[in-house]
Amino acid sequence: MQKKHNKEEIIEVGQELFRKRGFNNTGIDDILKASGTPKGSFYNFFKSKEEFGVEVLKHYTDRQYNYVKDLLQNVSLTPLPRLKAFYNALIKGNLQEGCRYGCLVGNMTQEMGGISDLISSSARDNLGRITTLIGECIKEGQEKTEIRDDYSAEELAHFVHNSFYGAIMSSKAGRREQPFQLFFEMIFSFLKK
Amino acid sequence: MQKKHNKEEIIEVGQELFRKRGFNNTGIDDILKASGTPKGSFYNFFKSKEEFGVEVLKHYTDRQYNYVKDLLQNVSLTPLPRLKAFYNALIKGNLQEGCRYGCLVGNMTQEMGGISDLISSSARDNLGRITTLIGECIKEGQEKTEIRDDYSAEELAHFVHNSFYGAIMSSKAGRREQPFQLFFEMIFSFLKK
Repeated sequence: MQKKHNKEEIIEVGQELFRKRGFNNTGIDDILKASGTPKGSFYNFFKSKEEFGVEVLKHYTDRQYNYVKDLLQNVSLTPLPRLKAFYNALIKGNLQEGCRYGCLVGNMTQEMGGISDLISSSARDNLGRITTLIGECIKEGQEKTEIRDDYSAEELAHFVHNSFYGAIMSSKAGRREQPFQLFFEMIFSFLKK
Repeated sequence: MQKKHNKEEIIEVGQELFRKRGFNNTGIDDILKASGTPKGSFYNFFKSKEEFGVEVLKHYTDRQYNYVKDLLQNVSLTPLPRLKAFYNALIKGNLQEGCRYGCLVGNMTQEMGGISDLISSSARDNLGRITTLIGECIKEGQEKTEIRDDYSAEELAHFVHNSFYGAIMSSKAGRREQPFQLFFEMIFSFLKK
């Protein structure tokens, strides 16, 4: 049990450091130091830094998944207001950090997607899990005639969520809210039936 | 003149390595080696790696600027088809590289925007220069009633180009064309009057 506990702790610390300081800018030593793990333990748990990165991405998305699911399956709102509440929550999270850090999946994809096949495909899988939940909410919105249905719910979900990642990127350039405001206003103008 | 030539060469090499391998994943030594510059010369030209990064971003955007200007001010097409030709050209460039590397400005913003004030504000400036050209084309499209005018040309340009950056990110996750196809189809459906 101790071993499992340590592994999760290392992943938690890696997640925070990778998201805030970057993957290549964070050494294994930084992670061991910050998690109070004895030197040398790392490779008992992970084959390489790259495979560790994949586990960190999965862990990050696992946690996001439950949070996102609660928001996107909240039946006290109809689908379109629910989708708005979801993006408002994500935007609020970014604003609370002064638009500095963004999302680990987006950051690692941009930094490592070109050089690591493992991280590139892991990022696609993790993005896909969240996008599936968004698509289900959009599909319900189409059925309730709140959301346009000239594209499939899945296609709309991918476009909308990709677009949100662009807003995150732009918000980090100059650390500003405006990209989120434009995203929110125009995406929901685009989506409404 | 020799000195200037060397400086540009170092910047060119830095640009390619930063874009393809990442900022923190590329050492000064890698750049000096690849550019055949004697060790120690680097700090004659640049105060720090961070300031070098800013010069690289500016150089990259300077070159892009002329290319983008030619496409977005090509009067043989009306503004909407011209904007389509512009994004088709950017998408083609990404596809030719197998959706591996994306844009240096987006990559460096995601990797370094949180930890470097200099790089974050430089990224905003460089994005702004390109977005201004896009906004001018959109404004012309609004005047010719090809493009919706319920938002300002500047707001539309920011939203559209941010959204494109999200498509680049997503295309690097799993190295796939689909995010570009969805971006193109839906953004132009959104823009048309």
